[in-house]
Amino acid sequence: MAKELVFGHQNPDTDAIAAALAASYYLNKKGLDTEAVALGAPNDETNFALKYFGVKTPRIIDKADTKEVVLVDHNEAGQSVSNIKDLTVTHVFDHHKIDFKTSAPLFYHAEALGSTSTILYGFFKKDGIKIPKDLAGMMLSALISDTLLLKSPTTTDVDRQVIKELAEDAEISDYDKYGLELLKAGTDLSKKSEKDLIDGDAKSFQFGNKTYRIGQVNTVDIQSVLARKDALKKEIETENKEKGFAGFLFVITDILNSNSVALYFGDDQTKIESAFNREFKDDVIDLPGVVSRKKQIVPPLTESFN
Amino acid sequence: MAKELVFGHQNPDTDAIAAALAASYYLNKKGLDTEAVALGAPNDETNFALKYFGVKTPRIIDKADTKEVVLVDHNEAGQSVSNIKDLTVTHVFDHHKIDFKTSAPLFYHAEALGSTSTILYGFFKKDGIKIPKDLAGMMLSALISDTLLLKSPTTTDVDRQVIKELAEDAEISDYDKYGLELLKAGTDLSKKSEKDLIDGDAKSFQFGNKTYRIGQVNTVDIQSVLARKDALKKEIETENKEKGFAGFLFVITDILNSNSVALYFGDDQTKIESAFNREFKDDVIDLPGVVSRKKQIVPPLTESFN
Repeated sequence: MAKELVFGHQNPDTDAIAAALAASYYLNKKGLDTEAVALGAPNDETNFALKYFGVKTPRIIDKADTKEVVLVDHNEAGQSVSNIKDLTVTHVFDHHKIDFKTSAPLFYHAEALGSTSTILYGFFKKDGIKIPKDLAGMMLSALISDTLLLKSPTTTDVDRQVIKELAEDAEISDYDKYGLELLKAGTDLSKKSEKDLIDGDAKSFQFGNKTYRIGQVNTVDIQSVLARKDALKKEIETENKEKGFAGFLFVITDILNSNSVALYFGDDQTKIESAFNREFKDDVIDLPGVVSRKKQIVPPLTESFN
Repeated sequence: MAKELVFGHQNPDTDAIAAALAASYYLNKKGLDTEAVALGAPNDETNFALKYFGVKTPRIIDKADTKEVVLVDHNEAGQSVSNIKDLTVTHVFDHHKIDFKTSAPLFYHAEALGSTSTILYGFFKKDGIKIPKDLAGMMLSALISDTLLLKSPTTTDVDRQVIKELAEDAEISDYDKYGLELLKAGTDLSKKSEKDLIDGDAKSFQFGNKTYRIGQVNTVDIQSVLARKDALKKEIETENKEKGFAGFLFVITDILNSNSVALYFGDDQTKIESAFNREFKDDVIDLPGVVSRKKQIVPPLTESFN
């Protein structure tokens, strides 16, 4: 029989890939027979980590060909494989808000920690399972990526402790230095098309009865991204029309200064303004201090739309 | 400030009460300030256990007066406090199917084990927190109640192990003997009104766009309950009308022989027949081998209705 598939969300970031690798390794040690796969090609940052630690890129799928699956770093159907409704989810490991429905009990563990990899580290530790060096490196990279090197408000004391332990397991003596290299590897946007930029890390969210899209890019130079506003607008409006999104919020985050601005094209612009208590000027809204989609963007939007 | 409230589902069974006591004790040891409460008066079985182990009945509420709450042994809004939509759920410990939505990340742990108390036992053990004798007795009673003394198909190897450890902590030398006493304490239905019978353990479920109600009583004599069919029908039809239930399935379970029959009054009777591949005769359907609402009733109904 085919192995049970383990995967993170579409448009995988480093945590989606690393947590799938970690959960698969962990569950196999617990007696399951699983394979980590990815719902899309790794981004530049993840490729940097895969190469650095000599880890093979997981097989890429968009539809699962097994009956049972494990979800990591996501739980909402819209962020998962296209045939999720026909599958049985046996386990979820996640650190996001929950919008999940099943017809039978399952294993579900979520915690508001900085990364899903941080959560999985706890399971390895609880059961006394040693994490191989290369896997620890990927999990370390995921923790660094999701917390922007412990700067995101999603960072917890647990993350601050686990980063040290994972760095040790991964034999990284200076995780700050490694972390900056990793984050910078993901910020060279100059060679990317506007379509790449808006699709890169975008996720769909249901607010009311409509589907909205929220994308995010990390950069060290917000102005050079904003300089491409007209081309981004054109691409976003095409995507809204083709995929039926009611709106698209494109967040541009300065990882060095922990600030963001966002572009928005779509319905209900005023609901976005009231979510953040700020106004759009020329389609751009300032989001000072905002770096976390999960903690600082989705919750106020959910409140404002519902 | 008021303590954070911890509670199980409406119409509490022994696990709803015991898991609330256990989760509150556990979280307080972890530094939170919580109080276990109940969404309704304990049933006869739970009262037997509370008396046996000298535990005070938790305060009964139907609305939470704190902003933050902890859910145990349930997750669906329809089974929770009336004002659940206005509250922030910080933790869930549960062993049921999931139908849950939040706007922010939280701690959520579910496992397909026999009782929520079994799951909580694992958290005490992981963190090396000793369970006091009286609390262990309540958790033992909950495990026995939910698994019908390990006979329900929801029983796992973990439950078979934990029952021994909880019995030891509770200083119960023969848990089989105690378990039968406990279960029988919940089966004296003769003094109960029809309204008590149908309301006792009933929960609401969403199938499609309609709300259905599923109640269950344990007995050692199915025929004596069926003899009250006409009066039960009248009471159920009144309740369907008053509360807007599309239908009410009333399951009568023989705990000695591990069988059930069910009465049904409401819409879509044929969907219930196709869920169980059997037909109603005089409003009664045979459910041989069925004892678990969670594992053997709700999943086939969910499939059949959706």
